[in-house]
Amino acid sequence: MSRTKQFIQYFLSHRNVTNELINKIEKEHYDFKPTPTSMSAKELATHMLFTFYKFAKVAKEGNPTLFQEKIEETETDLHKLAETYTEKTISLLESLTDEDFDRVLDLTKIFGAQLSVAQFLQSAMDHEIHHKGQLFVYVREMGHTDLPLFIKRG
Amino acid sequence: MSRTKQFIQYFLSHRNVTNELINKIEKEHYDFKPTPTSMSAKELATHMLFTFYKFAKVAKEGNPTLFQEKIEETETDLHKLAETYTEKTISLLESLTDEDFDRVLDLTKIFGAQLSVAQFLQSAMDHEIHHKGQLFVYVREMGHTDLPLFIKRG
Repeated sequence: MSRTKQFIQYFLSHRNVTNELINKIEKEHYDFKPTPTSMSAKELATHMLFTFYKFAKVAKEGNPTLFQEKIEETETDLHKLAETYTEKTISLLESLTDEDFDRVLDLTKIFGAQLSVAQFLQSAMDHEIHHKGQLFVYVREMGHTDLPLFIKRG
Repeated sequence: MSRTKQFIQYFLSHRNVTNELINKIEKEHYDFKPTPTSMSAKELATHMLFTFYKFAKVAKEGNPTLFQEKIEETETDLHKLAETYTEKTISLLESLTDEDFDRVLDLTKIFGAQLSVAQFLQSAMDHEIHHKGQLFVYVREMGHTDLPLFIKRG
């Protein structure tokens, strides 16, 4: 299997779970936050969707300043956003070649280090998994008890 | 840098954060759970510490049945457990050679797949990061607002 295909499979083994959780969030719970200093459910979900998309864009285009650009988005439905940004992210990932994974990104200004695209995309996965863990607690606090495993293979 | 050294660095960039969070959990909060169906703080922390240790043991010894063995542990202080199990896990990881990372583990009975040690240890990382994300929410609900970043490099 190509590195690109393998990475997309890894991405989806977690993202499909993220989306399953997002799909459990009803509109009346968009502003739910477990504590006053936490991100709201809506902020957490959009943060995850937008951030991975930006990681993929930087990986593709090699320009780390894209990372700090604000995404202007008028759609507010989380279920639609999950679908759209997952598709947009997959498109970018599909356009990577196996050689792209070894390309070095100069992220000294943002991360304080130079990272290969492979390492950079692993950070994107770590970020997704971290916040998905939080999302599990949020969704359980909204009253859901029938929750998926944290990873879905195949 | 050797693969072993690189992996231990990656492990510690997350585990040190896990331990920082565990060290914020006071005895009176050991039984805290955000919802009745959640793991308690104590269960969550020990689950993380024991599970990574078992992953490392299986990676080293190649025997997946070790994964299902129950750890008998009389220590109940989470801060001490975090220290001990982090050390025990590092010792096991340090004993891996770079070639070990390519060794294939037959995990069809547990994970439904054959995985290289590298892939298996990545699953251990994903598991750690997932539950650490949850731990952030727990610790914030205990009243802590001065929390570390989800990863600490270097």
